[in-house]
Amino acid sequence: MNVTVWNENRHEQTSEQVREVYPEGIHGAIAGFLRNEEGIEVQTATLDEPEHGLTEDVLQNTDVLIWWGHMAHHEVSDEVVEKVKQRVLEGMGLIVLHSGHFSKIFKTLMGTSCDLKWREADETERLWVINPGHQIVDGILEYIELEKEEMYGEHFDIPAPDEVIFTSWFEGGEVFRSGCTFYRGNGKIFYFRPGHETYPTYYNKDIQKVITNAVKWAKPADRKRPVYGNAKPLSPIAPKGE
Amino acid sequence: MNVTVWNENRHEQTSEQVREVYPEGIHGAIAGFLRNEEGIEVQTATLDEPEHGLTEDVLQNTDVLIWWGHMAHHEVSDEVVEKVKQRVLEGMGLIVLHSGHFSKIFKTLMGTSCDLKWREADETERLWVINPGHQIVDGILEYIELEKEEMYGEHFDIPAPDEVIFTSWFEGGEVFRSGCTFYRGNGKIFYFRPGHETYPTYYNKDIQKVITNAVKWAKPADRKRPVYGNAKPLSPIAPKGE
Amino acid sequence: MNVTVWNENRHEQTSEQVREVYPEGIHGAIAGFLRNEEGIEVQTATLDEPEHGLTEDVLQNTDVLIWWGHMAHHEVSDEVVEKVKQRVLEGMGLIVLHSGHFSKIFKTLMGTSCDLKWREADETERLWVINPGHQIVDGILEYIELEKEEMYGEHFDIPAPDEVIFTSWFEGGEVFRSGCTFYRGNGKIFYFRPGHETYPTYYNKDIQKVITNAVKWAKPADRKRPVYGNAKPLSPIAPKGE
Amino acid sequence: MNVTVWNENRHEQTSEQVREVYPEGIHGAIAGFLRNEEGIEVQTATLDEPEHGLTEDVLQNTDVLIWWGHMAHHEVSDEVVEKVKQRVLEGMGLIVLHSGHFSKIFKTLMGTSCDLKWREADETERLWVINPGHQIVDGILEYIELEKEEMYGEHFDIPAPDEVIFTSWFEGGEVFRSGCTFYRGNGKIFYFRPGHETYPTYYNKDIQKVITNAVKWAKPADRKRPVYGNAKPLSPIAPKGE
Repeated sequence: MNVTVWNENRHEQTSEQVREVYPEGIHGAIAGFLRNEEGIEVQTATLDEPEHGLTEDVLQNTDVLIWWGHMAHHEVSDEVVEKVKQRVLEGMGLIVLHSGHFSKIFKTLMGTSCDLKWREADETERLWVINPGHQIVDGILEYIELEKEEMYGEHFDIPAPDEVIFTSWFEGGEVFRSGCTFYRGNGKIFYFRPGHETYPTYYNKDIQKVITNAVKWAKPADRKRPVYGNAKPLSPIAPKGE
Repeated sequence: MNVTVWNENRHEQTSEQVREVYPEGIHGAIAGFLRNEEGIEVQTATLDEPEHGLTEDVLQNTDVLIWWGHMAHHEVSDEVVEKVKQRVLEGMGLIVLHSGHFSKIFKTLMGTSCDLKWREADETERLWVINPGHQIVDGILEYIELEKEEMYGEHFDIPAPDEVIFTSWFEGGEVFRSGCTFYRGNGKIFYFRPGHETYPTYYNKDIQKVITNAVKWAKPADRKRPVYGNAKPLSPIAPKGE
Repeated sequence: MNVTVWNENRHEQTSEQVREVYPEGIHGAIAGFLRNEEGIEVQTATLDEPEHGLTEDVLQNTDVLIWWGHMAHHEVSDEVVEKVKQRVLEGMGLIVLHSGHFSKIFKTLMGTSCDLKWREADETERLWVINPGHQIVDGILEYIELEKEEMYGEHFDIPAPDEVIFTSWFEGGEVFRSGCTFYRGNGKIFYFRPGHETYPTYYNKDIQKVITNAVKWAKPADRKRPVYGNAKPLSPIAPKGE
Repeated sequence: MNVTVWNENRHEQTSEQVREVYPEGIHGAIAGFLRNEEGIEVQTATLDEPEHGLTEDVLQNTDVLIWWGHMAHHEVSDEVVEKVKQRVLEGMGLIVLHSGHFSKIFKTLMGTSCDLKWREADETERLWVINPGHQIVDGILEYIELEKEEMYGEHFDIPAPDEVIFTSWFEGGEVFRSGCTFYRGNGKIFYFRPGHETYPTYYNKDIQKVITNAVKWAKPADRKRPVYGNAKPLSPIAPKGE
């Protein structure tokens, strides 16, 4: 199983604070814990590589793509976005993290504005498990508590998710559907809210466990895209009178 | 309540057969039966009018927009599509009919290919009611039977609908989710399958009843768009130690 | 349209505090604001009446039933519960309030334990609108704030609702799906969380608006129950060889 | 992973025809192909064993329970049904086959009548894949065709499934949601329609593949039941004035 961790990797270049938290980049931190899993091959790709590191070859050989972006969504080429979208519809899993809610790829797959409320105020976040039987929460207790995170609040302008796995409580008074699954075409998508660049969220063991579970859940089924277009009848059609 | 019936209105220009079935255009037929409803003001708009008849003013004063298109989806301007999309997210209801599954507006709101199987073979279609308590099937029996229609078959590449109201059986061996609702932003969308241009489907009393019910269901709620963006805390946030 | 407001009406008998808040009973308060709506006929029924006030005749003439119960769920007769359930499946709307989550009728319709976390601590509750286009939130702002309420927290052991309309934030750190719709048979169900007996919640204008909207939404469609059982073929079946 | 295949095992006793098709019983046929899977331990249980073969010990050691019943649903003891239900809410997977739609355990978990249309007429059934990315359809083509089966038709009186995986076409004119998932408590449920006792359906390789996939999907997550009941605050609650 091949996982590609894509990161915009810009805050890491411009902010000392972010570099201290993630010296190998957010992609490095995520790739790091995923590499501990047996049976998962991990590579990374970033915005400033040619084709953002997402060449045809890379995409064809990716089973699950993880996406982190924030300040440079508009620099992602429409052509690459379209290729990623087609791969999702063909079955590639997609895990969109935190500020990736505003990425071109997430917005085009959702069809809505994907807008939300936000606030940077070192708030406690508590992610409550809403769907306790789902394989994405395997090994997770009733909630995950993060001492400090950016707040994201409802209304989150997305289609009703196929499954709401987590809903977050924020100290300042908001709630947020912070773990959501979406089936699109042959592909499975998981949006997972936490992970602002200035907090060490991706070192949290529970957060790592959820992302790892999600990677396994998002693995493509062994199926081709359905056949679309003009179709011959499978059963006889009776002639109609006028 | 203001309803705008939009029709591509091209088959009616080029095909004698279609003109015979719909001498006043498909938009004329739909507007006709809606005008019998009290409390509904109906106007029509077509592709070849300036801005396709969907000016800012028309859109702002439309509560529910009905959309029929087929051979000229690509001629609909991206700018108008974007305006319609924003109005849906603001609350305008949208009813997409038949081949409108491939319209730019439906595809952009769904985020998927919206592809399907199809066949023109004068097949019997039977639309079974799947959600018997829904207001869209008020006054409808267990199924609607259409002696002859074009076939649309699964897989229909859409997100899982918020509600599946009808599923169709086709003589040649396929099934299709033929009545589907989707909430997007403040807006409500209903996709309704039947209505190939060469059949008198929109004169069928049950089909008219469903479209009329759907118009009432899709009426905007009296609410503004939620406020998005940076938000002040509503409850006090405690200072955190390092 | 006929609405029956059912209340256990026991706290009102045993607690001076509750009697002060609801001198005409919780049923009286709810019936009171519903009677201001044109086109809605309202009656009340309580546990200690014969057949709990829910005779065959009352049920047959009820379009929407509102249910409040708490300390005496076990005193509701199984026979009445079964009759109410059949009426819901036939199309009668059902609005279950607050501690009604543990009523026999709600539990039997859900099929799960309907259990939850709870705490009585005068907490602020903020009900955030999650589905901004739904007719149940017509006229409601982004959230409803209640200064003091009992806390209900996730996990709420219900099937995934057909629609989540509100999610609550509680001061003490929990979240809760506090406005949920469920289609069952021909009937529509709305569970609405607020309304602990010691708080004046049902005098809140927003809460009254939501309940009023829900009553309208839950109105039965004009349809019979589908026909179940052995069925003749509608299309010809070809003989099969061995 | 421990799977228990439960079968009523009555048709096999009373009908020569059924005995010819399933000489080792329906449970024997299903256990047979599951035993070919690595990592799955399979045992069987039947109605006429003490406690129907579903003792506390068996249930505690079952990860996924498969259920086939038809003519003797009423002979299943309410006590055993209650135990199975509790185990599902605790996380045990449940796969309900064919006429099990009317079993006590399925009806109590659904909360509805679970009624449907039916006909025994040697009809062709075609199960179309509706959710092409789901792990239950791993390795399955666009549809599964069964030359002869009993017909089940809509309306199927169940809650809207969390996921509709298959929808069947029947020769005689009906459609049916024939593969449906439901999350209940910590447990996952899959209803799968085919498998009338007089047809060799459970020897079909695609049907076997679907049931095997479903067993893997329904495996419990490693989690305890959430804690319900009175809860202490996790964050400070401010005193309110009067």
